[in-house]
Amino acid sequence: MLQPPVIVLMTDFGLEDAFVGVMKGVIASIRRDARVIDLTHAISAQNVRQAAFHLERSIGYFPDETIFVCVVDPGVGTARRAIGVEAGPYRFIAPDNGLLTPIFERWPDARCHELTNAAYQLPNKSATFHGRDLFSPAAAHIAAGVPLAAFGPAIDVAECAKMKMFRNRPLEDGYGWQGEIITTDHFGNLITTLEGSMVSDGGVWTVTVGNAPPLPIVRTYGEVETGHPLAYTGSSGMIEIAIRNGNASAELGVGEGDAVVVRRG
Amino acid sequence: MLQPPVIVLMTDFGLEDAFVGVMKGVIASIRRDARVIDLTHAISAQNVRQAAFHLERSIGYFPDETIFVCVVDPGVGTARRAIGVEAGPYRFIAPDNGLLTPIFERWPDARCHELTNAAYQLPNKSATFHGRDLFSPAAAHIAAGVPLAAFGPAIDVAECAKMKMFRNRPLEDGYGWQGEIITTDHFGNLITTLEGSMVSDGGVWTVTVGNAPPLPIVRTYGEVETGHPLAYTGSSGMIEIAIRNGNASAELGVGEGDAVVVRRG
Amino acid sequence: MLQPPVIVLMTDFGLEDAFVGVMKGVIASIRRDARVIDLTHAISAQNVRQAAFHLERSIGYFPDETIFVCVVDPGVGTARRAIGVEAGPYRFIAPDNGLLTPIFERWPDARCHELTNAAYQLPNKSATFHGRDLFSPAAAHIAAGVPLAAFGPAIDVAECAKMKMFRNRPLEDGYGWQGEIITTDHFGNLITTLEGSMVSDGGVWTVTVGNAPPLPIVRTYGEVETGHPLAYTGSSGMIEIAIRNGNASAELGVGEGDAVVVRRG
Repeated sequence: MLQPPVIVLMTDFGLEDAFVGVMKGVIASIRRDARVIDLTHAISAQNVRQAAFHLERSIGYFPDETIFVCVVDPGVGTARRAIGVEAGPYRFIAPDNGLLTPIFERWPDARCHELTNAAYQLPNKSATFHGRDLFSPAAAHIAAGVPLAAFGPAIDVAECAKMKMFRNRPLEDGYGWQGEIITTDHFGNLITTLEGSMVSDGGVWTVTVGNAPPLPIVRTYGEVETGHPLAYTGSSGMIEIAIRNGNASAELGVGEGDAVVVRRG
Repeated sequence: MLQPPVIVLMTDFGLEDAFVGVMKGVIASIRRDARVIDLTHAISAQNVRQAAFHLERSIGYFPDETIFVCVVDPGVGTARRAIGVEAGPYRFIAPDNGLLTPIFERWPDARCHELTNAAYQLPNKSATFHGRDLFSPAAAHIAAGVPLAAFGPAIDVAECAKMKMFRNRPLEDGYGWQGEIITTDHFGNLITTLEGSMVSDGGVWTVTVGNAPPLPIVRTYGEVETGHPLAYTGSSGMIEIAIRNGNASAELGVGEGDAVVVRRG
Repeated sequence: MLQPPVIVLMTDFGLEDAFVGVMKGVIASIRRDARVIDLTHAISAQNVRQAAFHLERSIGYFPDETIFVCVVDPGVGTARRAIGVEAGPYRFIAPDNGLLTPIFERWPDARCHELTNAAYQLPNKSATFHGRDLFSPAAAHIAAGVPLAAFGPAIDVAECAKMKMFRNRPLEDGYGWQGEIITTDHFGNLITTLEGSMVSDGGVWTVTVGNAPPLPIVRTYGEVETGHPLAYTGSSGMIEIAIRNGNASAELGVGEGDAVVVRRG
């Protein structure tokens, strides 16, 4: 059986307007059998770092050859480039604004082309909605077999925009690690910049955030009473802080950018 | 024409994060042609009863052989079991926490297996996101033809967790029925625990909720003036209370758990 | 390769409840291979004008033969008709309440049939959820090849409901144009009733809205500093007002129905 291509969309467009629906219309006009999956459209407006984080943590769960269309694009309509990238088993379509930083870190041998060929864009391209006019058609044409080199000139990945993934990189301070909250999820769980692997040596570790007492790192919610806070290695691989059957962000008054400290013992 | 399998997802994960998108990536990695439909991802956090209600009222509108993946799972990572169920023409994947109560009530001859076979789970299963690591791959493998018995040992349905579907079961009190509001929809319409069939004898019935005057039960919105409250048998088969072109929950100050009384005449 | 049919859904149902998921179940029960795309389900409750605006601005991005199912239906259950329409390369299923006004304006030769044939509706049709019981099955049966004439009697399009698309039609006043804000998008950008073509003569134009100083019309966000307001022709073809990397609606205190003035020079 011939497998339909998979195209994944991630934007900061929300679902209130017709933006995302129209992108899918453009894709269906070019490659109707594509299987289009929404990663999320609720990236905070123009929060490129948040998009990069979600992308990096998600790609491994998609099949080889998946095409990721990532549109968090504060510079739309300016001189910022649009790029197509082949990296490992995946393909990426994005503005060249640092969103693909974790992709370039993981696959330094990625191949990148600028998306300049008007034959693979909508006619009458707008200055404000390249998700519709440029990125979606590019993804659909790649899905239809157009080679990346046909879209425009090669770019050395070293010249692509990069960003700091965290405002402050995790710091090992002799007693453990200092990090920060990178984002908060739907349940109010706090995701930190600290990797679970930092505390997986079998020792006893505690996490401190805000005014909460030091929290033991446990395996899952069930190990504390309902309503009590806990820390654990979350499904993203990062250390997370939650309140069992509660909302840690709201109840602890902690959010993005706040400090987190991990201590042994 | 060979029909693609249908997989329906219902969770309390919301759409802000990448949780649901990643579940679809896992499914596409195993059975790319599956037709994945979102029932809703806006179940209130860990509200198993609300999930059971929506599931029970929705399944009849899906084709035979549909696989329902239901992840409202406050006990994830604890000893609670994960189960796969064949009931009537459908298949269900869920935590064994009572969510499937209405399925077991309707099909007492349902067959149930625990999902223990690691061959049908992701490697490195997390303790907090079984929607991704266990439930989604199970659904995709069932869609690919793996028989339920291959997933783990049979469980007697009598031993599966059950729950009370309503906090208080509807009470016939000699004058009519006493019930409560089970949930509120997007329009602010109030859905009650009382079945439309209770008042379908051709007689005249009225409904009382909160401080509103007794409302006649009518057939549809158009039978009252704009801005006026009404009661009717809703699309779920339950008696509902609405305000025509308004928001009954907000304007009447009534919500989940509040009492509703139906009287003849 | 045989192309699967494309069915587009637009409603005011939101995504909190199971309404939209159930509509997809009904479609999958009839035509499982249909490619169903959500245009948006966040139309303001019963805002037929907003739905008509989004529809008209979106249809051109979908492939020929796409079937648009539009359910913003304050008159559900009353005597308002349900209609199926063939117009240009597209098909539309909607209540006859003015929602299709821009379709009838663009294609005066559209063909319209009332949807009365119970064979193409669900049995036990409810009085409040025709999206499920009538509109979705109609779309799926059209996708399966049932001709429009089989659904019910022909209606002269001149007899279909029409609406004013704007509360006030744009006014040319000798100095430029007077219009209003038609809607606000996810980013807080203000979309006006004024077409970009009104100011595309190469001259210099400014836009005034609320208490903001007159704004020059530029090509894109990058032409002003971060945090500054601007006006430009948006991706919908209408003049829009935004704040670069900000929320114009919130920061300017302007919203739907507010006046906009465009002046030369």
